Amino acid sequence: MLANKPILVDLKIIIIDTMKIRKIINQLDPYVPGRSQDEIANEYGVKKEDIIKLGSNENPWGPSPNAIKAICENINNINRYPESNLKDLKEEIANYSNLKSENVIVGGDGADEIIEVLAKTFIDPEDEFIVPLPSYMYYEFIFKPYGGIPVYGKWNIEDNSLDVDSVLKAISERTKVIFLCSPNNPTGGIITKEQLETIIKATDALIVIDEAYYEYSLINNTELIDKYHNVFIMRTMSKVLGLAGMRVGYGLSNPKLIEYMHRIKPVFSLTRTSYSAALETLKDKEYIEKSITNGIKSRDYLYNELKKFKELDVLKSYSNYILMNIKRTGHTASEFSKELLKKAVIVRDCTSFKGLDEYWIRASIGTLEEDKKFIAILKELIK
Amino acid sequence: MLANKPILVDLKIIIIDTMKIRKIINQLDPYVPGRSQDEIANEYGVKKEDIIKLGSNENPWGPSPNAIKAICENINNINRYPESNLKDLKEEIANYSNLKSENVIVGGDGADEIIEVLAKTFIDPEDEFIVPLPSYMYYEFIFKPYGGIPVYGKWNIEDNSLDVDSVLKAISERTKVIFLCSPNNPTGGIITKEQLETIIKATDALIVIDEAYYEYSLINNTELIDKYHNVFIMRTMSKVLGLAGMRVGYGLSNPKLIEYMHRIKPVFSLTRTSYSAALETLKDKEYIEKSITNGIKSRDYLYNELKKFKELDVLKSYSNYILMNIKRTGHTASEFSKELLKKAVIVRDCTSFKGLDEYWIRASIGTLEEDKKFIAILKELIK
Repeated sequence: MLANKPILVDLKIIIIDTMKIRKIINQLDPYVPGRSQDEIANEYGVKKEDIIKLGSNENPWGPSPNAIKAICENINNINRYPESNLKDLKEEIANYSNLKSENVIVGGDGADEIIEVLAKTFIDPEDEFIVPLPSYMYYEFIFKPYGGIPVYGKWNIEDNSLDVDSVLKAISERTKVIFLCSPNNPTGGIITKEQLETIIKATDALIVIDEAYYEYSLINNTELIDKYHNVFIMRTMSKVLGLAGMRVGYGLSNPKLIEYMHRIKPVFSLTRTSYSAALETLKDKEYIEKSITNGIKSRDYLYNELKKFKELDVLKSYSNYILMNIKRTGHTASEFSKELLKKAVIVRDCTSFKGLDEYWIRASIGTLEEDKKFIAILKELIK
Repeated sequence: MLANKPILVDLKIIIIDTMKIRKIINQLDPYVPGRSQDEIANEYGVKKEDIIKLGSNENPWGPSPNAIKAICENINNINRYPESNLKDLKEEIANYSNLKSENVIVGGDGADEIIEVLAKTFIDPEDEFIVPLPSYMYYEFIFKPYGGIPVYGKWNIEDNSLDVDSVLKAISERTKVIFLCSPNNPTGGIITKEQLETIIKATDALIVIDEAYYEYSLINNTELIDKYHNVFIMRTMSKVLGLAGMRVGYGLSNPKLIEYMHRIKPVFSLTRTSYSAALETLKDKEYIEKSITNGIKSRDYLYNELKKFKELDVLKSYSNYILMNIKRTGHTASEFSKELLKKAVIVRDCTSFKGLDEYWIRASIGTLEEDKKFIAILKELIK
């Protein structure tokens, strides 16, 4: 038996108590779970029901009532495996996206599962993928364990736009996938169709347009799927569609790629309850319409109010969150977000986003009432 | 633009319409989704509500009523991301397993996700994993895309037991993981503790004991976790616990390995509804007890009745399904299972299991009423 601490034996594996774990696991950051509202309530001495959640870009108005009804009406057979072909759901998503079923793949762990299936479909060790920074960090979390090497492009914070040249320069023979998030998380800026097409035409790598928040931007790029062979659009039901807790995402692309991805996709990953909820939410046009208009209203309200603080540098957003630099308040994001927790407000400290320093905070939209409380609390904190 | 059919360009990737898909995807079988009860009802002209599902080793008595209640009571916040640390659920699983929270990892796509995390933790390209055949085919489905090479041991069909020597002989320098399923799917036989320990002591590779069905065998091997550094026990809530449709699985091992696996595990894969259902089912001791005793009763009834058919070779089972060879009926499993579908009975044609020929059928337990109908239909078919 070896000693208790990890001992490096070669380039590929590490041995822990003689167990043969891959070396790459040791290069990843230990996983720090998000804390529950209960824990935050206990630690900061606030009431759980008073907590305003502006940390995770959710839909603050709750799920579609039809989704709740559908779950409770279809619950008696949860002892049976879920459907694996998801025919009706794919059709409903195709309708929603103005495409066909054969263009659709569904993820049972939200869009995160779609990212996983993309990695499995495209990434051999030493292959490269491109991410402009700052952007969604989960791409890297999933792609690295497959041996993928991140190559970073740049997102211009100044004018909140993609630096297209930085992406073009990052392309190499080994580039397999390029992630372009629009609206971009966490900055809220969008990538124009012209910019997208410039990159799409410059490479055979797969261009993954992450449209998790597209409904709030009133822009979508599905027409590019028919026009180019190397476009994949990734979406989620966790935002406008109000189902973050049910983990439903989807991908849209040409039927050939979709067929290949189905070969390697987890077979039963979407639960029966998620299936019911997703299907009925997509049919609830009134709910969707309201989610979008209320979301945009809340975002615009927040933006206008936040702009009034001369200590905050606020980025224009096309999404359901707003990124701001708080350096001139004299606090770091870590300090500032803790002060907000004491007042029962959860925002996202963006220090862990590569490409941002320690002075950025992202706040999601709340209901108008929550927005107002948040602004009032900011006024107390920033004197 | 290249022609439409795949063109091989090198050892690593294939190009489809100039897209750079990994070659390994082409070596996998196209995914054939299981068909829904609706489709079967349509194709075979039977009533959906008459269908007897004996194909997927589910719990035929439905979920715990407490699980249903818990889902519907905790459903209003499904617009919020799930908890990621799953503290209460891990504690409840630890209680159920007589271990501690730090021994537990939860999978949000059943045990299938646990297999995925094991692959990510242990498998670099060219690494080997061992599976005795026949056994659960999903190990291979998940491990191959990571570059893992399956090396096969042997399960003795004659006496329904593991050929330990075949596993020992399969071990090499590159063996990272050995899957030992007990009770074994699809044969129903168990691996004795002595056999397990012989293999555990012979290698530093991780021994994954798949105990998906352990409750039906009244045997469990959790004591081996403290005794050896290289034991991982994998379980599911899809069988005795009646939650196949909610996709909850778990793994049990030493705290160090569990911590490593948490670094790489999907962060939010367990839905809010699955969390509620899992927690309340584990607390429902009466339901669990009934599921086990009814399950064993149904299995023993089926076994005794099936043994009466002189045309069937029936394997003794410690699980909730029974494997039988039907060669002497004069039909293949494919033909025979279609005949059963016409009578509204779904069983598993085992032709796709490596290590079995085209004459094996696996039937899960049903309720006693379903068992009786199944036996009566067999009597009609086997004259």
